Amino acid sequence: MEFTKMHGCGNDYIYVNGFTEEVSARKKPELVRRLSDRHFGIGGDGVIFINRSSQADFEMEMYNADGSRAEMCGNGIRCVAKYVYDKSLTDKTSVSVISSGQIKYLDLIIKNVMVKAVKVNMGSPILKAADIPVISENEEVISEMIEVEGKVYEMTCVSMGNPHAVVFMEDVENLDIEKIGPYFENHVRFPNRVNTEFVKVIDRNTVQMRVWERGTGETLACGTGACATVVACILNGLTEEEVTVKLLGGKLHIRWDRRENLVYMTGPAETVFEGEIEI
Amino acid sequence: MEFTKMHGCGNDYIYVNGFTEEVSARKKPELVRRLSDRHFGIGGDGVIFINRSSQADFEMEMYNADGSRAEMCGNGIRCVAKYVYDKSLTDKTSVSVISSGQIKYLDLIIKNVMVKAVKVNMGSPILKAADIPVISENEEVISEMIEVEGKVYEMTCVSMGNPHAVVFMEDVENLDIEKIGPYFENHVRFPNRVNTEFVKVIDRNTVQMRVWERGTGETLACGTGACATVVACILNGLTEEEVTVKLLGGKLHIRWDRRENLVYMTGPAETVFEGEIEI
Repeated sequence: MEFTKMHGCGNDYIYVNGFTEEVSARKKPELVRRLSDRHFGIGGDGVIFINRSSQADFEMEMYNADGSRAEMCGNGIRCVAKYVYDKSLTDKTSVSVISSGQIKYLDLIIKNVMVKAVKVNMGSPILKAADIPVISENEEVISEMIEVEGKVYEMTCVSMGNPHAVVFMEDVENLDIEKIGPYFENHVRFPNRVNTEFVKVIDRNTVQMRVWERGTGETLACGTGACATVVACILNGLTEEEVTVKLLGGKLHIRWDRRENLVYMTGPAETVFEGEIEI
Repeated sequence: MEFTKMHGCGNDYIYVNGFTEEVSARKKPELVRRLSDRHFGIGGDGVIFINRSSQADFEMEMYNADGSRAEMCGNGIRCVAKYVYDKSLTDKTSVSVISSGQIKYLDLIIKNVMVKAVKVNMGSPILKAADIPVISENEEVISEMIEVEGKVYEMTCVSMGNPHAVVFMEDVENLDIEKIGPYFENHVRFPNRVNTEFVKVIDRNTVQMRVWERGTGETLACGTGACATVVACILNGLTEEEVTVKLLGGKLHIRWDRRENLVYMTGPAETVFEGEIEI
């Protein structure tokens, strides 16, 4: 089977052309686990099959490293856009990609006939506490106190399809995220658990962020987390509408268009290598 | 650059044909760091270049993931033997490989015209305490007491070119190796630090082993550690001369030929995939 290893801000997947490579659905979970293993397999955060779709230009069929289905990944979908253009599966520079019934629209930024970066319409942020969900006496959770392990933090909560708690602080670099992350994730105020972003505002257009992802732990980058962070920044009057988010794995540019109420994420997509494996 | 990803008991390296791929020595450390990165690169425990040699059939030029030179790796050298035979760089089934001035002799075990396993002559064990080195009042350290963090253990010390302390115990599976490993490694009795093997004897021909490698931590497998373990087993009358060592990453078969005073290690070598990367 031929594959391409790609990453977006260090979030790395094994990309497989579903037009040419046929794998039975039944065998996929086991195959994904084997391929994703970083010592015995190719290694990656999971596998993404790029398929034909009747509802969008392409389908992204995404699996986590443990073989379970994943619904959406902002870093992964940018690489899908790069894949289909660089490999001439399309010549359009605006493509739609469906994943688990959800369609995303992507604009390709081309340099030397290759895709360098991709802009994704990430949809509208959800601010209503009950819909995020977060337990609160208020309609929206903006700069609200939360006590975690005996310490009080201020958080702003945003859903980008998945729940986020954004916490502003001065020193994110030295934060012991392994210690505090699980307590946010499993706090009684988040019925579906939560992704937590720890954010330092550098200036009106730049922030630094570390993220604790629900079920995973600290990751190099989280696209929806970067979007939620910028929405939270704007709601708290801390930044302008267009912000560069510095993550451990790279940079994402986020713009919340207040008029349309849409969040746009622009970020890199990189091809690391091409490979062939016997399956 | 073309490369092959291979592993021996989960110890995985990126293998590059030095006959055809030219990389300047000056650029290698940085390239190795980039290629070995498991999110932004190919991912591996390091990179091994297979080169021409005037002293042996082939040279193994080995680098750790951090770009530093490595001297020898039992799991890596088996894969070198598989590489040169499977890729028709040789048609011999006994090959010699030099690494950092040290020559090893390998016998290939062929199945369906491909190398399935490789037997390596690992040389003679060093038992003299001063040469291992381990501080002791005795000439050799066989079943000697050592106090580590307030607990007394029995250890047998063997060097296979690098120092090992072998500790027998009943329950290696539930051992908190992350906690105790560093205390053995940096114990005052080991002037050059030490690799520690925690070993359960299952029967006269089978042992289970976990290893804490000096400078690395717990690993899936350690070839010299498996050899040291079997030498220690035999010195303590616990096993026969031929033993299967079960490691987290697979199995190694070790035989200490007392007459020749040579240790032979037989283990798997696996090709995972072929790849091509722009460098």
